Amino acid sequence: MAPPHGNRLLSRKDIEQFFERGVHTHLPGLCVICAVFGFHDPNLSLLLAKWKGVNLWSLPGGYVLRRESLDAAARRVLYVHTGIRTDHLKQFRTFGGPNRTGAKLRSFYAKLGIRVPADAWPFRRIVTVGYYAFVDSGKIRARTDYMLDVCGWYPVNGRPRLSFNHEQATRLALEALRGRLDAPAAGVSLLPKRFTMPELQHLHEAVLGTRLDRRNFQKRMLEGGRLERLAERRQGGAHRAPYLYRFRSDRPQDDF
Amino acid sequence: MAPPHGNRLLSRKDIEQFFERGVHTHLPGLCVICAVFGFHDPNLSLLLAKWKGVNLWSLPGGYVLRRESLDAAARRVLYVHTGIRTDHLKQFRTFGGPNRTGAKLRSFYAKLGIRVPADAWPFRRIVTVGYYAFVDSGKIRARTDYMLDVCGWYPVNGRPRLSFNHEQATRLALEALRGRLDAPAAGVSLLPKRFTMPELQHLHEAVLGTRLDRRNFQKRMLEGGRLERLAERRQGGAHRAPYLYRFRSDRPQDDF
Repeated sequence: MAPPHGNRLLSRKDIEQFFERGVHTHLPGLCVICAVFGFHDPNLSLLLAKWKGVNLWSLPGGYVLRRESLDAAARRVLYVHTGIRTDHLKQFRTFGGPNRTGAKLRSFYAKLGIRVPADAWPFRRIVTVGYYAFVDSGKIRARTDYMLDVCGWYPVNGRPRLSFNHEQATRLALEALRGRLDAPAAGVSLLPKRFTMPELQHLHEAVLGTRLDRRNFQKRMLEGGRLERLAERRQGGAHRAPYLYRFRSDRPQDDF
Repeated sequence: MAPPHGNRLLSRKDIEQFFERGVHTHLPGLCVICAVFGFHDPNLSLLLAKWKGVNLWSLPGGYVLRRESLDAAARRVLYVHTGIRTDHLKQFRTFGGPNRTGAKLRSFYAKLGIRVPADAWPFRRIVTVGYYAFVDSGKIRARTDYMLDVCGWYPVNGRPRLSFNHEQATRLALEALRGRLDAPAAGVSLLPKRFTMPELQHLHEAVLGTRLDRRNFQKRMLEGGRLERLAERRQGGAHRAPYLYRFRSDRPQDDF
C-alpha cells in the first residue's frame, strides 16, 4: 500500500497542515506507535527516534486518518517517520489512562516554530494502539523525517530512556514478542533458509534476553516436531560441520 | 471500583444525558465491548444482549469516560448494562476500519423516542477496544438495563447472529481465550479446588470446541508439571473413585 505522501517522509509542511486541517482528516484522540525490534545475530535491538533539537526519545508513532484502518495507519506512520516498510506489524495492546496526554508535544512544536492551536487534541488525552514487529536489523536502515534528528537501532538493554509512556509500551511489546517464540516457525524470516541449531538458539536468546542451555534447547526444539534435519551440513567453519535444519511447516510463518 | 451510577444499571435518563452532554464527558470515536465467555461443565456459553424492541443482538458495549482508564471503562460498561462485575476482563484486540460506524444505532434510539443529534459521534466511525473474560456461568446471572430486552448466556455454537462487527470480535476473542489454555493454571477459577482429570478435560474441550483423546490429554497435563496428584480420591460416584488434582503453582492464576 503506497503511503499518502508517496515515497517521501513527513515534511514541515505536512505537520503544519495537520494542525490546520487534521481535525477533519484524522481521528481525534487516537494514535498508533510501533515498537520495531531488530535481530542481527546475536543482538536484539529496538528502532528509536530522537526528536529534533530536544532530548526526547521515543518509538515512532503518529495519528490515524479517518479513511484508513488501524493496521494501515501503523504501516503508514512507521514509513513516513522512518522510511521503513513492513507488513509484519501486529497489535500488542491499546493503552492510555486519563493522565496520558500529549502535552509535552506543545513545547516541542513551539521550538520548531510551528504554530499550533493551544487546545489541539494531540495535546489532550490520547489513546494509543500499540503495534510491534520483528525484522532483520542488518538489512533495514532507517531514515529521518522533518521531526527527527536521529532514527536507528539501539540495543534493547542500554538504550536511551523513552518519553511519554513508551517505556511501558516497550515492556508490553517485548512480552508479546516473547510469547510468540513458541509458534511453529518462529524466526523463519530472520534466519537463513537452512540454519544451524546455534543460530536458532541465538535468536531465542536475543528475544528472551537470557542464555539457554544448549542441550535442553536442542531437545525442546526437536521434540516439538517443528524442525527437519537436512542431509547436508554447514561447511567451512573451523569446527566439525554442524547439521542444518529448516522449519517443517508447509507455509512457515513467523507469527511474531 | 464502584461504577459511577452506584449500584444501578443504565436508565433512560442516563442515555438522554449521554446524548446531551456526552461530548464533554466521554472520549469521542471510541468504545469498548466485552466478550464474556461462561463455563458450566461441560458447556461454553457467551453473554449476549438483545436490544429493546428490535431484532438486534450484540456483545455488551459502551463508551469511555474521559476520566477513566480503558480497563475501568470495560468493567463499568459491562456492569451498567448487565449487572455483572468481574476483574477478569483482558484486551484481545482493537479494531474498526473506515466502514465501521454506529449508524445502525440511530434508528434504534428513534424507536425508543430518545432525541439524538443526527451527527452525534456514536453514529460515525468508531474504534472498538475488545475485552474478553472467562467466568463461571453457573454462578453469574445477568440483569438488563433500559436499552435491553434480554441479557443472558447462549451456547457459543447455536447462538443468535450478532450485529455490528461482533461476529468477528467473538472469533478474535475466542482465539485469545484458546491461546491462554496453555497457561500453568488455566481454569483454576472455574474448577473445584480439587478436581478430577475429566473435569479439567471438559473445560479444555469446551474452550477448544472439540473432543480430546483422554489418554493424550492426561499425559500432556501431567508432563507439563502443572498438576499435583493428591492422596485422596473423589468419593461417591458410581465408578471407581477417580484421583483428585490441584494446580501446583504457588499463586495459581487463570491467566485467561
